[in-house]
Amino acid sequence: MRTSRDIRTANRYGVLRQIIASSPTSRQELAAATGLSLATVATLVGELLGLGMITEVGFEDSAGGRPRGLVAVNASGGALIGVDIAETYVHVELFDLALSVLARTEDDVRPGESRPERLVGKVAAAVGSVVAQAGVEAARVLGVGVSMPGQVDRATGVSEYAPNWDHWRDVPLLGLLAEHIAYPLHLDNPLRACAVAELWFGAARGRSDAVVVNLGTGVGAGLVLGGGVHRGVSNSAGEWGHTTLVLDGRPCHCGNHGCVETYVGAPGIMRHLRELSPDSALLHPEDQTATVDALARGVAAGDPLAVQVVRDTARCLGAGIADLVNLLNPEVVVLSSWVAATLGEPLLAEVREAVARHALRRPLAATEIVLSPIPTDPVCLGAATFALEGALQAAGQRGPTATRRTPAPAPAPAPAPARSRTAPPV
Amino acid sequence: MRTSRDIRTANRYGVLRQIIASSPTSRQELAAATGLSLATVATLVGELLGLGMITEVGFEDSAGGRPRGLVAVNASGGALIGVDIAETYVHVELFDLALSVLARTEDDVRPGESRPERLVGKVAAAVGSVVAQAGVEAARVLGVGVSMPGQVDRATGVSEYAPNWDHWRDVPLLGLLAEHIAYPLHLDNPLRACAVAELWFGAARGRSDAVVVNLGTGVGAGLVLGGGVHRGVSNSAGEWGHTTLVLDGRPCHCGNHGCVETYVGAPGIMRHLRELSPDSALLHPEDQTATVDALARGVAAGDPLAVQVVRDTARCLGAGIADLVNLLNPEVVVLSSWVAATLGEPLLAEVREAVARHALRRPLAATEIVLSPIPTDPVCLGAATFALEGALQAAGQRGPTATRRTPAPAPAPAPAPARSRTAPPV
Ligand SMILES: [Zn+2]
Ligand SMILES: [Zn+2]
Repeated sequence: MRTSRDIRTANRYGVLRQIIASSPTSRQELAAATGLSLATVATLVGELLGLGMITEVGFEDSAGGRPRGLVAVNASGGALIGVDIAETYVHVELFDLALSVLARTEDDVRPGESRPERLVGKVAAAVGSVVAQAGVEAARVLGVGVSMPGQVDRATGVSEYAPNWDHWRDVPLLGLLAEHIAYPLHLDNPLRACAVAELWFGAARGRSDAVVVNLGTGVGAGLVLGGGVHRGVSNSAGEWGHTTLVLDGRPCHCGNHGCVETYVGAPGIMRHLRELSPDSALLHPEDQTATVDALARGVAAGDPLAVQVVRDTARCLGAGIADLVNLLNPEVVVLSSWVAATLGEPLLAEVREAVARHALRRPLAATEIVLSPIPTDPVCLGAATFALEGALQAAGQRGPTATRRTPAPAPAPAPAPARSRTAPPV
Repeated sequence: MRTSRDIRTANRYGVLRQIIASSPTSRQELAAATGLSLATVATLVGELLGLGMITEVGFEDSAGGRPRGLVAVNASGGALIGVDIAETYVHVELFDLALSVLARTEDDVRPGESRPERLVGKVAAAVGSVVAQAGVEAARVLGVGVSMPGQVDRATGVSEYAPNWDHWRDVPLLGLLAEHIAYPLHLDNPLRACAVAELWFGAARGRSDAVVVNLGTGVGAGLVLGGGVHRGVSNSAGEWGHTTLVLDGRPCHCGNHGCVETYVGAPGIMRHLRELSPDSALLHPEDQTATVDALARGVAAGDPLAVQVVRDTARCLGAGIADLVNLLNPEVVVLSSWVAATLGEPLLAEVREAVARHALRRPLAATEIVLSPIPTDPVCLGAATFALEGALQAAGQRGPTATRRTPAPAPAPAPAPARSRTAPPV
């Protein structure tokens, strides 16, 4: 059962989220937007002021009443770092508290560079680099969120399995990083990163139930249910890419057959293009990005082959998304990650049609399908948000206010490993 | 966002659930079992005592401490009525607060008897009959829960669509029933009824995330997520029977092709048997129940055809359940409803094998698959539980304690239509 501490943490998230979205704003507006009482909002605003995450920025007139105090996010009140580890690259971004990017690094991961020690060195160097570039004091860094593909154990910081690196098994990733990085560290995977990014800053903000469909090399669905990210009992919810779309269909690296990912992931799209036209100039055999770019340009130019590939992909995707709509009855389905961003509106239009053909009337009527509105790397943003959530949760655990209001604290969920941030990084 | 009232209601559910499961019990045991603080448990126990739903039943010694007060459910402190409306029957059961059945009626619905007025008359007569049979005073009936297949709007009490009755559209079912029944009325569908029955009294009790797979004529999945029933934005979550198992497969009455239901619902199982052996003695062409009974007996006797039909059904079912395991990462999957109960352990064993072949390692390792342990009609029990939840929620809305502790109540979810229970039923 959820304890009063859980609900206070969730409410703290909600109020800060709303302040970031609508700075400057008043406590009255926050109460209206969140559905919380004015008294609760006032308490939470007081906590956030105490943490230096927001500031008082003056007053506005209220019709006939006394002037209302305004608060805004204190952009320089802290820095957050998001790390996006992928098969072929490591992106690291440093954000201020308004979640603007102050510094970034992009680094390739070449074949042979994916051994844990090598990769950890890369990440640690990149984290040091963005802090130096941005010129923020180490003491201002509230934490580092790390997104690692595959199955991760948030509580222990272990990356159990990475789908594209066969040698990668049960790597104590946060433990290794902590030897180089002194900030609080938080681990999760890209599905959850994209979900939390949409929940805080994108199309799922203010929604109770949302599905964030990640379309890249791998495919998955980050789930927002009941206003929070649904992780499942062992933090592996969202593996929609490995649900069966075609019984006994294409073989998948997971061992199953006919998985959604084998049809709508970038390699599946390339396979379909190759089957339709092995010699097409659209196909760049070793380059997913170049092929998907070529398809997008082809659709824009009216190339019938490109149009067909995107339509057939959308048809599979739409059947799969209709299943999610029927099962979960979400308010919004968000298409995220690079394949969705590249294929854009033409893909969206075909997906909407395909979902409408497959889904039941009532859940269909309640669901919007949209492209992610987040303009930057949603995985880095989401990873940084893990660090923000971690800082807000930690504040609740040590804050005198919280202690006073929770007479006999119930067991809290195991926190992600977090280390004191007294020393600067490498 | 969830308000403090929502969390208090959820906690009240959790404490009463635990008391029903383990009467007599102490506040200390309840705190340990629910993870709530002793202070919170003491407050909630006080409320339930005030409502007459539980009673003080003495003391137990505690090692070295002062004797601990024991509480138990007050079975005669109220009566709950569950109504299960199905395509071919109406079952009505009256329960005491320990959820023992005190009276029941079973009534066939013949072709032509499914017009709204006729059906409402049947239900109203049955409700009057169980109250009379049980000899409970009308004032003790806390409410009536009604389960209606298809899409229902809980807030308005309208049954929008029933899958097997073409003429049934947007029927104001609770409004019509309220002309005959003076008790508070609550409407939902069998998926949610089975989910809430497992959550309160079955295999999902004490679990945060569970999937209750309903196998009958229709097929669906009631979802328990975050310790509560997940309903979705328009109360239509759980339509797993209409997720695609075979792209371009068997046509379904929903308009889609290859739906799970067309393979593992009773008519789908009969179709498979007919395709394998059109003249089999196992097949009772117009009688789903007789056919599934014959299959169960055939499997017990080692009939190869029966074994194959059950195995093939389990293979489809297992592929579909593996999708749910991958997507939602639940602690438990419960096989419920009459087809699961009839085919029993042999079906379960084959399903477990099939799920193991299809699901990812990590979510698979976290999931148990079990048959529903509920011995009676889970839909009636779940419908009665809607009435119990409604009574507990209403108590929170009018109780002086709740009012005192919630200084500025936030908007509550629209309650199911509930009428005062001053007059006896028809
Ligand atoms: Zn797969
Ligand atoms: Zn269907």
